[in-house]
Amino acid sequence: MSSEIQVNGHAYRLPAQPTVIVCVDGCEQEYINLAVQAGVAPFFASLVQRGSVLAGDCVVPSFTNPNNLSIVTGAPPSVHGICGNFFYDADADAEVLMNDARYLRAPTVLAAAARAGASVAVVTAKDKLRSLLGHELKGICFSAEKADQATVQDNGIDDVLAKVGKPLPSVYSADLSEFVFAAGVMLMETARPDLMYLSTTDYIQHKHAPGTAGANEFYAMMDRYLQRLDELGALIGVTADHGMNAKTDAAGKANIVFLQQVLDQRFGAGAVRVLLPITDPYVVHHGALGSYATVYVPEGVGRRAVHEAVAALPGIELVLDKQAAAERFELPPDRIGDLVVVSERLTVIGTTPDRHDLSGLDVPLRSHGGLSEQAVPLLFNRKLRDVPQRRLRNFDILRLALNHVA
Amino acid sequence: MSSEIQVNGHAYRLPAQPTVIVCVDGCEQEYINLAVQAGVAPFFASLVQRGSVLAGDCVVPSFTNPNNLSIVTGAPPSVHGICGNFFYDADADAEVLMNDARYLRAPTVLAAAARAGASVAVVTAKDKLRSLLGHELKGICFSAEKADQATVQDNGIDDVLAKVGKPLPSVYSADLSEFVFAAGVMLMETARPDLMYLSTTDYIQHKHAPGTAGANEFYAMMDRYLQRLDELGALIGVTADHGMNAKTDAAGKANIVFLQQVLDQRFGAGAVRVLLPITDPYVVHHGALGSYATVYVPEGVGRRAVHEAVAALPGIELVLDKQAAAERFELPPDRIGDLVVVSERLTVIGTTPDRHDLSGLDVPLRSHGGLSEQAVPLLFNRKLRDVPQRRLRNFDILRLALNHVA
Repeated sequence: MSSEIQVNGHAYRLPAQPTVIVCVDGCEQEYINLAVQAGVAPFFASLVQRGSVLAGDCVVPSFTNPNNLSIVTGAPPSVHGICGNFFYDADADAEVLMNDARYLRAPTVLAAAARAGASVAVVTAKDKLRSLLGHELKGICFSAEKADQATVQDNGIDDVLAKVGKPLPSVYSADLSEFVFAAGVMLMETARPDLMYLSTTDYIQHKHAPGTAGANEFYAMMDRYLQRLDELGALIGVTADHGMNAKTDAAGKANIVFLQQVLDQRFGAGAVRVLLPITDPYVVHHGALGSYATVYVPEGVGRRAVHEAVAALPGIELVLDKQAAAERFELPPDRIGDLVVVSERLTVIGTTPDRHDLSGLDVPLRSHGGLSEQAVPLLFNRKLRDVPQRRLRNFDILRLALNHVA
Repeated sequence: MSSEIQVNGHAYRLPAQPTVIVCVDGCEQEYINLAVQAGVAPFFASLVQRGSVLAGDCVVPSFTNPNNLSIVTGAPPSVHGICGNFFYDADADAEVLMNDARYLRAPTVLAAAARAGASVAVVTAKDKLRSLLGHELKGICFSAEKADQATVQDNGIDDVLAKVGKPLPSVYSADLSEFVFAAGVMLMETARPDLMYLSTTDYIQHKHAPGTAGANEFYAMMDRYLQRLDELGALIGVTADHGMNAKTDAAGKANIVFLQQVLDQRFGAGAVRVLLPITDPYVVHHGALGSYATVYVPEGVGRRAVHEAVAALPGIELVLDKQAAAERFELPPDRIGDLVVVSERLTVIGTTPDRHDLSGLDVPLRSHGGLSEQAVPLLFNRKLRDVPQRRLRNFDILRLALNHVA
């Protein structure tokens, strides 16, 4: 195979050693720090001496899909097109789900590496990411959620439950992520792919604060699997799609700005449309509440008046118009509204109270989506050289792992 | 005694029942939330039903002295003058410590209440706050740190260790704060002051994250004393001087912008002066590293160039010139530099590496000072009425407790 590929304007060397990129969903850096402090994460602890410990910024909105796609394309959403789970199609007057690969506007490094001859494997926790991450990928690609349904034809592998040696996990569980790691180890022990991408789910991070028992147990589990991958000789890079913060008051009540309700009262019912791109089919653990919203303001409603009304609300950190948001956050302008709204660290944005089912929240809300969840880890079990002296991004990770290992 | 006093432009009713205001140093709201979740804080848990759970913003810089003084004067630093532990006196070319009451520009509600006939008691953890909080106060005022030295003449009470029934605590310990609460209970059981102000130290919060064992133990201790004060019939209001955040990467290494070093390299050694107003005689647990700095730019150095250089640094959230900072944060312009600099949530500002002794940091740095530590609890064991429909501040707490209890 040729030794270098070009994807979305960047050069990537093909892996010289088995390379595993892990996206730990919702991995606020403090989870790792406090697990190390608690003595339950010896692999992570070892990286200071024998590897590289860096940090980078994720894509805003700090949601799962935009960031996973940025990581595998090495590019921001302005290039790959996925800036949330939903956008509003004004012509069709419909909210459109973007979980399908036909909304992807750029090739992935994974598919390009496979095309150039590398063996590639992708394991995701939830199935919602599988078709996007596996777009045009010749290789192994399956989700823990639907591991029982994997076929050689569709997923490049079958009989996954037996091969991993674990039962099908519940979609709302720590087991879903553990299955991803167990499958990764199984693949490294058997097929030994040149390039592997593992993507977990933030079920634990939505429920457990850094350093608490439930979090430390999860990171101890992760540490054991990463240790095993390390022993198998893999180059490992770990980052996150986004961080995670408490979104509550001292009594655990969620701080929610019901933005549609506020704007309905101010500008008339339905005059403007608030869209929450965190909304997806799996909302039990966050009630579709994140720190990012986009607002569609039709002709005839004063855009500046709406902008100022939103910016004046307690709990709102930032309001940008479409162009400013597209520039600052590198978003595709045709898939965001006329305004982009980011709430403060402890606050989330909702539409109206009746449209958020909080009954699934059995612990106080922790969530993401805003600037406050932008800082994420960039960790490697190898020393890097010539690291660019600029703001790093989580979507630099494939370049750092493939081009900058000493 | 007359039923109402006027202090710094606000009216306060004199306490109709024994009233205890507690400033929990470094009390990020999540500490209380997670202690309640862990089941170790039944008093705090009860407040949702029987009391009031609110939140407010503290003063920026989110440091101890400016906020304690704001709480007891009911006014921002632009009124009371205390905007940090140090300011730079350009005429004298000296950094001046502001721990002394002669720097205080406004009377306290505590002193005014005492003058109007209320019996008032103040207990602080560290002695550095005692002279400021006790300014012109006729009543009881002592620190846990120097409880053994309290005399009737100077402190309105003597023999404190015997009365409290505890040995003198170490200044770097959770015991220092426990002594404050134990003294508060002792006073409520004996002198039963009309108005009491208790102010703790953030030794625990600098070392322990919310929800971890060390933090929950501290809040469980606090909860027991507050429960006892509640049983004794006190109206209790709890707030904080500031929140607290991790300031580290995934491996626990502090994220530090050494601002003096950067500006020395850029503009010449000593051309501008970076002052860290968090600096105080007690720096072991934070190494004088917080998320706020002020920069003095002499004539002849381009102020705009310095402003732009600082704003462009990774980890810097906000740079304001003197006037903008004085307006936005309600600070006394004569006691801040030409620029005010706030760093991002996970980053602190230092001067030069050799001027920060980090040897006392036995756990990864947690600190405060910035906008990221501005949200604090406002909790009461009574229902409130007619709460102002605006952004609340921690320094509203005396008005809320004295004027708004249902």
